[in-house]
Amino acid sequence: MTAPTHRVGEPAWDAWGDPTRAHRLTDDQRALISQVLGGAAATDAPRTPETELRLPRSALSPAARAALAAAVGPAHVNTRPAARLRRAGGKSTPDLLRRRAGDVAGAPDAVVSPADHDQVAAVLAACAEHGVAVVPFGGGTSVVGGVEPLRGDFAAAVCLDLRRLDRLLALDPVARTATLQAGLRTPEAEELLADYGMTLGHRPQSYEYATIGGYAATRSAGQDSAGYGRFDSMVLALRAATPRGTLDLGRAPASAAGPDLRQLLLGSEGVFGVITEVTLRVRPLPAAEHEEAWSVPDFAAGTEALRALAQGGLRPTLVRLSDPVETYVNAALAGGEAPRGCLAVVRCEGDPAHVAAAREAAATALRAVGGTPLGEEPVAHWRAGRYSAPYLRDALLDAGVLAETLETAATWTRLPGLRRAVTDALTAALSGGGAPPPPLVLCHISHVYPEGASLYFTVAAAAGPDPLERWRAAKRAAGDAIAAHGGTITHHHAVGTDHRPWLGAEVGDLGVEVLRAVKRALDPAGVLNPGKLIPEAAEPDR
Amino acid sequence: MTAPTHRVGEPAWDAWGDPTRAHRLTDDQRALISQVLGGAAATDAPRTPETELRLPRSALSPAARAALAAAVGPAHVNTRPAARLRRAGGKSTPDLLRRRAGDVAGAPDAVVSPADHDQVAAVLAACAEHGVAVVPFGGGTSVVGGVEPLRGDFAAAVCLDLRRLDRLLALDPVARTATLQAGLRTPEAEELLADYGMTLGHRPQSYEYATIGGYAATRSAGQDSAGYGRFDSMVLALRAATPRGTLDLGRAPASAAGPDLRQLLLGSEGVFGVITEVTLRVRPLPAAEHEEAWSVPDFAAGTEALRALAQGGLRPTLVRLSDPVETYVNAALAGGEAPRGCLAVVRCEGDPAHVAAAREAAATALRAVGGTPLGEEPVAHWRAGRYSAPYLRDALLDAGVLAETLETAATWTRLPGLRRAVTDALTAALSGGGAPPPPLVLCHISHVYPEGASLYFTVAAAAGPDPLERWRAAKRAAGDAIAAHGGTITHHHAVGTDHRPWLGAEVGDLGVEVLRAVKRALDPAGVLNPGKLIPEAAEPDR
Repeated sequence: MTAPTHRVGEPAWDAWGDPTRAHRLTDDQRALISQVLGGAAATDAPRTPETELRLPRSALSPAARAALAAAVGPAHVNTRPAARLRRAGGKSTPDLLRRRAGDVAGAPDAVVSPADHDQVAAVLAACAEHGVAVVPFGGGTSVVGGVEPLRGDFAAAVCLDLRRLDRLLALDPVARTATLQAGLRTPEAEELLADYGMTLGHRPQSYEYATIGGYAATRSAGQDSAGYGRFDSMVLALRAATPRGTLDLGRAPASAAGPDLRQLLLGSEGVFGVITEVTLRVRPLPAAEHEEAWSVPDFAAGTEALRALAQGGLRPTLVRLSDPVETYVNAALAGGEAPRGCLAVVRCEGDPAHVAAAREAAATALRAVGGTPLGEEPVAHWRAGRYSAPYLRDALLDAGVLAETLETAATWTRLPGLRRAVTDALTAALSGGGAPPPPLVLCHISHVYPEGASLYFTVAAAAGPDPLERWRAAKRAAGDAIAAHGGTITHHHAVGTDHRPWLGAEVGDLGVEVLRAVKRALDPAGVLNPGKLIPEAAEPDR
Repeated sequence: MTAPTHRVGEPAWDAWGDPTRAHRLTDDQRALISQVLGGAAATDAPRTPETELRLPRSALSPAARAALAAAVGPAHVNTRPAARLRRAGGKSTPDLLRRRAGDVAGAPDAVVSPADHDQVAAVLAACAEHGVAVVPFGGGTSVVGGVEPLRGDFAAAVCLDLRRLDRLLALDPVARTATLQAGLRTPEAEELLADYGMTLGHRPQSYEYATIGGYAATRSAGQDSAGYGRFDSMVLALRAATPRGTLDLGRAPASAAGPDLRQLLLGSEGVFGVITEVTLRVRPLPAAEHEEAWSVPDFAAGTEALRALAQGGLRPTLVRLSDPVETYVNAALAGGEAPRGCLAVVRCEGDPAHVAAAREAAATALRAVGGTPLGEEPVAHWRAGRYSAPYLRDALLDAGVLAETLETAATWTRLPGLRRAVTDALTAALSGGGAPPPPLVLCHISHVYPEGASLYFTVAAAAGPDPLERWRAAKRAAGDAIAAHGGTITHHHAVGTDHRPWLGAEVGDLGVEVLRAVKRALDPAGVLNPGKLIPEAAEPDR
């Protein structure tokens, strides 16, 4: 079997995922919100119904439309409002705020669905020739504006929908690699791999909707990165279509044949080309597993334990440490009692001997900092909801609460100062104006490396009369704090539009010039995903 | 302490390393060579004495010389013949054949020795302004022509000697990172790190002479890569001077902030800029170690055991598998008896629990394929000579034997076909002309990954009347076989001049265009290391 039998359905146009799984706040949760964020927060903020939306007419010229139809077949150039609406952007908080408010003016002028690599290449050629912006679209789960169909200098933009590229092209059981097409969502890819007893082990929060190509284009990291690695580290080879031709990169597990050009496409977010196939490391489905929650006295102690694990020889598959506020809030939202201090979660997968050894290593590290085991139940609870948090964001937006997440990474040494700075920046930015109480800022570590770790923040505040402006103020404050305190502007959410103002601080003006030079070489017409990733020559003041 | 107390001396100008350690063939070794490669092989091929050499006058213009003197101080612009001779190239077999024959016409026009990053930047600016080719030089151990002072389109070339950049700039014991300047040779870097109880664990055959910057610029892999990782995987951050300014790349242990631009500088071989500082992962000096040799029935069985180890959870620090010919020849050269089948070597370092577990994992994998332990002695013997093999090449060249090594990597699946193809290609290329017996081709695996491994070939043949032409024929045949059978043209020797004809096959014409675009952005005058890495627009027929 090379194509999956079970397809993941289309997500909602104005919310995270499956509309039938939408979260409804309980009365207790509403009471908790009123108590913490003030009564003004729990005010219903209704969405615009789809029937009231008015999409602008498709601006695609007849010639461009004909060229696209020639590339993929007329049936796969879709200009109907329902299709365009469902490709009008990603799932960032500003994306959702705009669509909920009925602002769909930016919807693409058509949704173009190629069947294979050659058709992708033909679409790019047509767009370059006719001056049409082209926005690659996989799962549409970007939370940083990465799939917003910006026009750049062009009159029209099309969504390049990769969902028809949904095949397993090759599986090598000896080298343990699989070649997957870009448009496969994770559950579909896992279904195909499971037939061979294999798994990717890549499980980010967007697992159910995100695609293989999207993971590669954004340097995704799954929650099990400690065991399976980041997505970029799993990539042996990739194929990308560009307006200037095809790139086939990677043939050996390691090479000294010059710069690693795969690393230019990984994280390129569709501005250099469209990744159509990825050859990935796969592993046997785990024969054993163990998971356990722990309580540790405080965040510093928990961080120390995670560092010991990350720098040791044996790593669990997943480690996660919530700060005291997150530990308390998550327990309260679940209607339970919070453990003392901070909640730490450990999961080990693999062959039985490895699981036993990794479990022992984790217990040793956590006991050394005063941790006490809490059993499996809290992990099972966390795991049951591991892909559901974004549904809660929708429910909070419905209830007039601005809820956002952002993430960074730094060395262990810089982590405490970075956490303090971002927390303070978010608190200050969302505390202005007098009336509402300060925001709630939660933080956890969910990805560890020998040299450092990620920090993942969740912030919730009353949405107020202009939630977009409040979001912008908070984002600006957090981004500046991250840049000033040695963090990367994003550990796994990518750059998109939202992090673009800080890329120059991260790679320097000369680094940005290098990105522009590569862009000119591969996309001289500049049609690929305008307005993303690469800062403009004169980036507007943020 | 930030600078090392013990400096590694300068290597010989016409041979590998320390002249006092030059290898002298024993009578038994000469007899063995005559027997295997024919009597004609063991014919002395004397070197040209230094006193008979005539270097061309330095072609550096007075204006360029003055600009360089302004950049680094007049004392650090050296145009004396002895200095220029010692920077006339690297240690590839063609490099040595040319210099031994007295061909030193290509020596650089000056040796320029900056003291720090800013002086490196000033040298690049001076060279760009005055149209002088500039060849970065660290340890000078390139075996692929990477430091040959080619002029490109310019009248003069200077060697940019990085040896004065020899400081430990920072050590973070919490994050376990060290910032080292580019010109430190490995023993010097290890001396500095040992003061903090730390090590890099990077031990390639060039360990004694190669430098930190050179490792980064060539994507080096140490013999202990299974445990410590390749050099590129140790790099958290790097600083590079380019004619267009400075690049400071990398701040977090992982990031999704766009393409990983560090990976453009790693492996850039001085054509984009000069790496002046590298922030590297370091580890505690190992508390325990264990090493053991094994005999396995054949190469396929040994490969299977290495694959099991590489794909398992616990990897030794070093694994190595010699094919039957290498197993036999190495034993014969040492005057000992060869074990049955193939020699496998395993070494484990770390904390005692890890060493015990990794040792057990290795024993299980090797026993599973019919391996039998041979004890520690063969490993101790191998380890004592781990950095000495290049001295043997000099002795063989003295004795009229062309000895060369080359390496590649591929997936486990492709490895057997690749090994056969390269062996056949080398044998055919060096068997022509009737008289001499076929060459001796040895092979081992010394770097393993979950998806595949490296293959390292040693070939020895009678040098004949035109050893350079024989070398070219063998290189051409091996390179074509590697490209045709799914290998990378180099796993850890880099591209330089010698592998440049195959880079296009590896990254494609469009990949080469991307490299050229980056080159134009960072080095618009094209002064940096001309003739290396990036194929010419019209690469001369190979």
